[in-house]
Amino acid sequence: MSMKNNYYIRLKEMCSTKDSRLCIGLDFDLDKIKISSINNLDSLESFIKDVIDSTIDVCSVYKPNFAFYEKYGPEGMSLLKNIVDYINGRSIIIADAKRGDIGNTSKNYAQSIFDYYNFDAVTISPYMGSDSIIPFLEDSEKGIYLLCLTSNKSAADFQYKFSDGSHLYEDLAKLALSLNVNNNIGLVVGATKKEYMQKIKDIAPSLTWLVPGIGAQGGELEQSVTIPNSNKGIGIINVSRSIIYAGNQSLDEIRDAAINYNKQINKFLV
Amino acid sequence: MSMKNNYYIRLKEMCSTKDSRLCIGLDFDLDKIKISSINNLDSLESFIKDVIDSTIDVCSVYKPNFAFYEKYGPEGMSLLKNIVDYINGRSIIIADAKRGDIGNTSKNYAQSIFDYYNFDAVTISPYMGSDSIIPFLEDSEKGIYLLCLTSNKSAADFQYKFSDGSHLYEDLAKLALSLNVNNNIGLVVGATKKEYMQKIKDIAPSLTWLVPGIGAQGGELEQSVTIPNSNKGIGIINVSRSIIYAGNQSLDEIRDAAINYNKQINKFLV
Repeated sequence: MSMKNNYYIRLKEMCSTKDSRLCIGLDFDLDKIKISSINNLDSLESFIKDVIDSTIDVCSVYKPNFAFYEKYGPEGMSLLKNIVDYINGRSIIIADAKRGDIGNTSKNYAQSIFDYYNFDAVTISPYMGSDSIIPFLEDSEKGIYLLCLTSNKSAADFQYKFSDGSHLYEDLAKLALSLNVNNNIGLVVGATKKEYMQKIKDIAPSLTWLVPGIGAQGGELEQSVTIPNSNKGIGIINVSRSIIYAGNQSLDEIRDAAINYNKQINKFLV
Repeated sequence: MSMKNNYYIRLKEMCSTKDSRLCIGLDFDLDKIKISSINNLDSLESFIKDVIDSTIDVCSVYKPNFAFYEKYGPEGMSLLKNIVDYINGRSIIIADAKRGDIGNTSKNYAQSIFDYYNFDAVTISPYMGSDSIIPFLEDSEKGIYLLCLTSNKSAADFQYKFSDGSHLYEDLAKLALSLNVNNNIGLVVGATKKEYMQKIKDIAPSLTWLVPGIGAQGGELEQSVTIPNSNKGIGIINVSRSIIYAGNQSLDEIRDAAINYNKQINKFLV
């Protein structure tokens, strides 16, 4: 397998070509959509495709969260597959599925996400440790993002547990670094305190980051861009609701929001 | 809502009626099935229904792991829905999905698993803390099982992290207990060292357990039955491959394996 197709290289090239570190979370919910004519899965699919066409030149990565598709059952999963097919390599697509299970089971999840749905990358919930992560790593063209430090309030319940001079989220970053043989591991690091983000960067300077918690979730943008995008790292910034529900959800408003976020992000990139 | 329909009560009654603490993991894989005529999703669905009919009188709980259905895409999810519909309340059904995300997203996962698919319970991967758990708890008729201590080798990577006199898995048990207002929380506790299992029991004596790691995974049966089934607790014992791949996978061999496991379990129940 040539290094050309390695996940990290593919991501880096996409970000460079589009001059964008923006990731748009495709987390549409029929119960919350503002346009009354979008009231079933067919009209939702057309709308999502329109949103993609309206943003793809400024968006390096799309990230559908599986919950928003799974709640419609098998038809929701067909819609998800159609979205991946529609993007068709024009942007990186991350399956925000937060999977993770014993080895043999994780292998089946990897088959689902990479082989069946053809996503470029997946998010992993790492409570069960390295066994549950390794089956996702085999194909260096595919990337994984391990939950490391999240920006929700109860992240403190477990992620801040401290022993032997290291918080759990730091242990996670160390493990990720040690498993990164194929150069296809990244970390999910929410927009939290600057010092925490810096600690993770210091532990694993070269790992790519996915940073949620910007926009509707209210995180700090500057540090979320500058910390992961120093050294050889790439940090992509996810924005979901603040883009896909912008204004009255006209395609112009959505496109403007995406352009605006991308400009704000790029302002901090030097 | 009457207490009659509370998840814990429903589970207890099912176990009592069937004189069974057995949970069968419905983790079928077309690539591993021994019967050559079972080679597509239609024939697999018929076979799974036959396996259910052959075991349901001795099986209180079925537990399909989502990975084995997701890998076939939307059609696999239709199959899963058909299985839940087919069981139709004759046994408890746990969605082994190991979900967990920020609150608004977990809410959508709960809608998927409880409202769309109509499962009785779900497994949760708790790395993100209580925010990610609470949306699953609202309906006291539905149960959740939090990953607490698992039996895979790399469980030690994070679950054994120790501070303030408590391992991470003990912290988890404490949190579960504090959230158990609706009496519908359980723990996933793998068949591991007796002392670890006893510690969890001491922290949260009344919580129901789901114990994987028996059979093909090789865990100790006696302690896995006696520890959770003391006091008011209910411990259900999951067996997957050692039952559903028994012998040459004839329905008689599968039924015999289920009866045999149930007898072995009941031997330790007094």
